[in-house]
Amino acid sequence: MKLGRLNHIGVATPSIPESVAYYREVMGATSITEPFDLPEQGVKVCFVDTPGENGTNGTQIELIEPLGPDSTLTGFLAKNPAGGQHHLCYEVPDIAEARAWFEGLGKRILGPTRIGAHGTPIFFLHPKDMMGQLTEIMESPRGGH
Amino acid sequence: MKLGRLNHIGVATPSIPESVAYYREVMGATSITEPFDLPEQGVKVCFVDTPGENGTNGTQIELIEPLGPDSTLTGFLAKNPAGGQHHLCYEVPDIAEARAWFEGLGKRILGPTRIGAHGTPIFFLHPKDMMGQLTEIMESPRGGH
Repeated sequence: MKLGRLNHIGVATPSIPESVAYYREVMGATSITEPFDLPEQGVKVCFVDTPGENGTNGTQIELIEPLGPDSTLTGFLAKNPAGGQHHLCYEVPDIAEARAWFEGLGKRILGPTRIGAHGTPIFFLHPKDMMGQLTEIMESPRGGH
Repeated sequence: MKLGRLNHIGVATPSIPESVAYYREVMGATSITEPFDLPEQGVKVCFVDTPGENGTNGTQIELIEPLGPDSTLTGFLAKNPAGGQHHLCYEVPDIAEARAWFEGLGKRILGPTRIGAHGTPIFFLHPKDMMGQLTEIMESPRGGH
């Protein structure tokens, strides 16, 4: 496998509206998507765009808020009430090939491949097998980020 | 202030050689800098390059390992022995202007402005004032990353 683009950094938050205000008013973000629910992951999501080099799209910040009390994020926020960095997401050209690659290395994959926040297939890898980093692998969107 | 480029994600590790092997062999990184000491921050550092859009440079992964037992990283690694995401670093065009901006907002700045791993001035902001994210602000390097 070849290292792909760092699509986004997942940042957990107790409140997307509060985080959106923070990114706009403190950090000066100008492009933030509307929040939407991702019931399969148990989260509400929105993206903060950051600028890349030479006018390209940079790595996004994915704000994630628990969708109900059974969210996988509930435990994270209990430990980090203000929120914080939650996962890293790298793009790959072919999700099935990437899944086979990590399986071949004996890495624990958390659940089946499913559709992620960008509408392309994704899976997560166990942080204990990834040097402490909860890692999402996503298939690159066609013609956009 | 306007949101700048996400220059790097700081990832703490108990061992840079182990992390470098992980990024090469598991994640498929091909461009990793030589490690060097940054005694002012009490860390050893190296950068993993990730690809950006259209052949540009993407956000880097900054691997940071404690430089001696008094490093600020020692506490982080005691809580996260395998390592993990430590901070986010955004670029600004003018470090003094950015410092005045955050001071004006009443955000706690951790120590004086100093020279960071890319050879330009940097400072850190307290995670409790930044929605749980330890945030580094760095002046953009001239003609490179």
